[in-house]
Amino acid sequence: MKDNKVRVGILGAAGYTGGELIRVLLSHPNAEIVFANSESNAGNKVYDVHEGLVGDTELEFTSEMPFDKVDVVFFCFGHGKSEAFLKEHKIPENVKIIDLAQDFRIKGDHDYVYGLPETHREQIRSAQHLANPGCFATCIQLGLLPAAKAGLLTHDIAVNAVTGSTGAGQKPAATTHFSWRTDNFSVYKLFTHQHLHEICQSLNELRPSAAPRVADTLNEGFETDGITVDFIPYRGDFSRGIFCTEVITLDAPLPAEKVVEIYKNFYASAAFTHYSDKALDLKQVVNTNKALVHVEVFGRKVVVTSIIDNLLKGAVGQAVQNMNLMFGLDERAGLNLKASAF
Amino acid sequence: MKDNKVRVGILGAAGYTGGELIRVLLSHPNAEIVFANSESNAGNKVYDVHEGLVGDTELEFTSEMPFDKVDVVFFCFGHGKSEAFLKEHKIPENVKIIDLAQDFRIKGDHDYVYGLPETHREQIRSAQHLANPGCFATCIQLGLLPAAKAGLLTHDIAVNAVTGSTGAGQKPAATTHFSWRTDNFSVYKLFTHQHLHEICQSLNELRPSAAPRVADTLNEGFETDGITVDFIPYRGDFSRGIFCTEVITLDAPLPAEKVVEIYKNFYASAAFTHYSDKALDLKQVVNTNKALVHVEVFGRKVVVTSIIDNLLKGAVGQAVQNMNLMFGLDERAGLNLKASAF
Amino acid sequence: MKDNKVRVGILGAAGYTGGELIRVLLSHPNAEIVFANSESNAGNKVYDVHEGLVGDTELEFTSEMPFDKVDVVFFCFGHGKSEAFLKEHKIPENVKIIDLAQDFRIKGDHDYVYGLPETHREQIRSAQHLANPGCFATCIQLGLLPAAKAGLLTHDIAVNAVTGSTGAGQKPAATTHFSWRTDNFSVYKLFTHQHLHEICQSLNELRPSAAPRVADTLNEGFETDGITVDFIPYRGDFSRGIFCTEVITLDAPLPAEKVVEIYKNFYASAAFTHYSDKALDLKQVVNTNKALVHVEVFGRKVVVTSIIDNLLKGAVGQAVQNMNLMFGLDERAGLNLKASAF
Amino acid sequence: MKDNKVRVGILGAAGYTGGELIRVLLSHPNAEIVFANSESNAGNKVYDVHEGLVGDTELEFTSEMPFDKVDVVFFCFGHGKSEAFLKEHKIPENVKIIDLAQDFRIKGDHDYVYGLPETHREQIRSAQHLANPGCFATCIQLGLLPAAKAGLLTHDIAVNAVTGSTGAGQKPAATTHFSWRTDNFSVYKLFTHQHLHEICQSLNELRPSAAPRVADTLNEGFETDGITVDFIPYRGDFSRGIFCTEVITLDAPLPAEKVVEIYKNFYASAAFTHYSDKALDLKQVVNTNKALVHVEVFGRKVVVTSIIDNLLKGAVGQAVQNMNLMFGLDERAGLNLKASAF
Repeated sequence: MKDNKVRVGILGAAGYTGGELIRVLLSHPNAEIVFANSESNAGNKVYDVHEGLVGDTELEFTSEMPFDKVDVVFFCFGHGKSEAFLKEHKIPENVKIIDLAQDFRIKGDHDYVYGLPETHREQIRSAQHLANPGCFATCIQLGLLPAAKAGLLTHDIAVNAVTGSTGAGQKPAATTHFSWRTDNFSVYKLFTHQHLHEICQSLNELRPSAAPRVADTLNEGFETDGITVDFIPYRGDFSRGIFCTEVITLDAPLPAEKVVEIYKNFYASAAFTHYSDKALDLKQVVNTNKALVHVEVFGRKVVVTSIIDNLLKGAVGQAVQNMNLMFGLDERAGLNLKASAF
Repeated sequence: MKDNKVRVGILGAAGYTGGELIRVLLSHPNAEIVFANSESNAGNKVYDVHEGLVGDTELEFTSEMPFDKVDVVFFCFGHGKSEAFLKEHKIPENVKIIDLAQDFRIKGDHDYVYGLPETHREQIRSAQHLANPGCFATCIQLGLLPAAKAGLLTHDIAVNAVTGSTGAGQKPAATTHFSWRTDNFSVYKLFTHQHLHEICQSLNELRPSAAPRVADTLNEGFETDGITVDFIPYRGDFSRGIFCTEVITLDAPLPAEKVVEIYKNFYASAAFTHYSDKALDLKQVVNTNKALVHVEVFGRKVVVTSIIDNLLKGAVGQAVQNMNLMFGLDERAGLNLKASAF
Repeated sequence: MKDNKVRVGILGAAGYTGGELIRVLLSHPNAEIVFANSESNAGNKVYDVHEGLVGDTELEFTSEMPFDKVDVVFFCFGHGKSEAFLKEHKIPENVKIIDLAQDFRIKGDHDYVYGLPETHREQIRSAQHLANPGCFATCIQLGLLPAAKAGLLTHDIAVNAVTGSTGAGQKPAATTHFSWRTDNFSVYKLFTHQHLHEICQSLNELRPSAAPRVADTLNEGFETDGITVDFIPYRGDFSRGIFCTEVITLDAPLPAEKVVEIYKNFYASAAFTHYSDKALDLKQVVNTNKALVHVEVFGRKVVVTSIIDNLLKGAVGQAVQNMNLMFGLDERAGLNLKASAF
Repeated sequence: MKDNKVRVGILGAAGYTGGELIRVLLSHPNAEIVFANSESNAGNKVYDVHEGLVGDTELEFTSEMPFDKVDVVFFCFGHGKSEAFLKEHKIPENVKIIDLAQDFRIKGDHDYVYGLPETHREQIRSAQHLANPGCFATCIQLGLLPAAKAGLLTHDIAVNAVTGSTGAGQKPAATTHFSWRTDNFSVYKLFTHQHLHEICQSLNELRPSAAPRVADTLNEGFETDGITVDFIPYRGDFSRGIFCTEVITLDAPLPAEKVVEIYKNFYASAAFTHYSDKALDLKQVVNTNKALVHVEVFGRKVVVTSIIDNLLKGAVGQAVQNMNLMFGLDERAGLNLKASAF
């Protein structure tokens, strides 16, 4: 750090998360962007690629990667490219890494800490390398983790979550063509979304030993003795946000107040995740780093609603929150973002 | 009928369903609108109230109700008003009634036939009085009825369905204000939507006697020995259409082809409901009277997707389909509507 | 024709206009699609490419072009490809051609009739080859032609027109990416849109000899002694429709009724273009072949509003209207389309 | 001020501008909301009314108005109510007033300074009472003022501007109903929008004495010897933002670089208004306090594009910018807002 500012390098800076990261860091009081790497855009102004930056900065993309001048590097690559990059490049040991891709989210032969502050805050504070959670994974976990910890997950869980188009990234595709997507609604990766891996990992970490195992159906299929997360992802016709419902079946009915208390307690010290007493709508969190969670109970069924902005709490905002923790800054620094609201 | 045309009267003609009914009937080869009743709009052109009719007709709303000049009356009232209207007004016995409200959908002390042609076609042909199904109810039933008939519904069913804003009618409300609704997503009437009544009635009518009873949780609550339809309705940020997923848990795994065959056979003779081999998106049916259904199987879980246009197959289109059946016309007459597609 | 049906071949059938043409012709009472040519999609069902056709047809794309089996061929190519195609292929003389591209809209060494029925109905009836007008060109001309004919165009004309995303075609581009386009608004081809050619041609054809020449600024630039059409095209965040305002400056004030009368008279016999006494909104014509025109007068300024659906009256609908005229059918056959309205 | 914070009172705090003001001030480093007055919502949490505030504040609406505890009062009333309020209530002389309504924008028998920092920065610094400009008025003036000052406005000006739905406020209306407005486009208050008053006032203040007078057509009609601002306002189908084009006709052609230079110089010291070398799209400014301006020249025609967020630079953001100036704070304090971008 220099002048009380974290010196930041960004790799893959021309994609959606790269752009959002630049937007957030430009008004972060304790961060300075040292370089924004993009081979194909080298020499271009960042505002030529990223919406909303004209007048805010004259920063240009660079093809260079001066790791000796930064304290942290954000990997904003597509999935699978972080690991490949590290095989070909040497990043100095003293430079921290925050990886927004999914390459290191599952525990294995690496030292990446899973960056969900609601559950891993202390490990994050001392992490050198961090795997930032997926967008759906963040939203669904925030809806399920309190129940998991309380041992309430004993039956298959019905998860339905709709995402905005920015979740699909910048590259044009048939399903991100405006003429197709506007006013449309569709389903994809039915029961097979890759975020199930990290969701199952987290639920199993948190559950009491007496509670049944959560099966990773992507690995072991659906004929399993574990309980399953039956996740249906939908494409919504908006650009930002994830709206998720999680239906939990209990062994026996619980009073609603009891369940609400479990959720409130779980998030009592969270910086950006709040329990809401009222039903949720997506725009309550769009353009913020907040997550909101709400619970209703019907007999043995608990219906949880959880919402986030997929680019912020679901990606860049959470990455900056993690950066704040990793560098001993105020967890909320640079993240008091005004909701767009409309 | 006169000159081979059904003479139609419309009550409640100034609301959304009234307007869509006028739009459909104006190009129906075997129908003629004799009167469009609206007390508050009497004397106004219908195109002053209903979008899209300038240049198509000079028809005016009237405060009169000349029942002696019509063969059928459509009730486009708000829910609960049909029954009230009939207590105060006498409709000649030879005039057929098609009620778009929910007043007579549940069997009881009346002679209204439930107007879902996929299951009641023959009764509809000879019906004098018809209760047109609800929009969510139509879409969800079309997703579940084949499984019900095949005895596959033996566990609680997870239903998630998102509707366009026209489902909420014409009257301005906080949740239909453009500034709030655009780019937004929300949940409402969680597990308590009134269409559960007619859905449960239909599922129970069709199930084999050995299959478990479907409980109407609105009447008996969630602590029940029947299986339940756990229905989460969402508000989408589009104007037309319903997109629904129904997750059925089987007692034991079935081959996907077997389940698909059940669905294809069930709809083999349907005029507007088709099985699609590919995943669905909502705009495939918007502005048409079609319903599409698609099925995928994961172990013991069957995921059905069903889609309709809420104003057409979910209301007016189905009502006209029923009119065609009631008057011995081609079931598809006036309903070969061009999809808006975009 | 065979069995009173026009036998139709479609070239370029996999694009947006190709798809809309298929949608329209499938319910046309006097037309039959004989082949839908698309090299790259040969063998695929048309519903695999075109939204909204599942359940309506099992038609497949073909790589063949059996011109001997059709009465008319629609060219749904991209601009510039019609002329190139004709150099390489021989179309039998008895087969009529309707070209939706801009290749033959400007008079020259060819026999293509300009297909705007409001001004060329009689020539169209006897045309063998037809150049279908552009979408912006149709909307703007319908707003200006009555004034041109009445000699009211004597000063530069301010034209502002916003188009839906389908105007940009099927190929993904940065400006049709949903994440960029939704909630966005932008300008393009400022004062230089290619449709100015055909607009100027039509205005000059219709103006009285005493009225000033309309300059084609694309050819002669802006330092001209003619009057100019100052056309600003905008990209709107909807999929269908063109909304246009044309501000005409008169030499001296005219009573509003006089101007309105000129417009009403001009369109008195038009099949799909109507004068509206009330202010317009775009959805009055979306998903129809109608055009609506409205006029207000402020001193020497006449403000005309004109609206169409870009894919229908601005392309395919008008092409079918022209086909109807060319084959002696009812001009409205197959084009009584239900407005989507919402 | 107290602890280096401006103590703020808000009247009319339950409307759209009231809500946006609360959102902005909550993260303003030098401001503190002392009271948010709303008679009808007294006792309710502000997040029960205003989207996006759950988790950010427990502030409640109050029916009280403790003027002795504040340094400034924001009037977020509807138009016309500010003046009425001041007749019935006494605000202490030392309390500054920032009025967001139009009541005091036109010079007269009052001491309100017109709050457009680009032209009135010094007067604003010493203002006790301030009239905040209108949203359309801000955007159009920013497009025209440099030309006005340079004496380039010598002919009628064609202004076309489209606004988001939040410009119409919170009260539901037919034209803000989602079902009507989505995918729609329309025109309103053609040539007669009330913001013409303040636009004309500003243009006349800035023009050289040799330049022709700009006529306020709302007062004097269209048969005038002044030049006119021919303003067509449109309703867009998005919630935030104003996109405006202004076409200026010069007496003689000017090189584009010369005109661009005039604009760049005019805004060289502006805090939030920037000249952009590239064509604009609306989302470049949405959710920010920025204005962007771009110019292209075609012969004697200068086409200016100007964009703002109607709730921020067009209302609340500019009001806070003015507050910053009035209290000697950094003009940008609290206004480095992250663009929503998507």
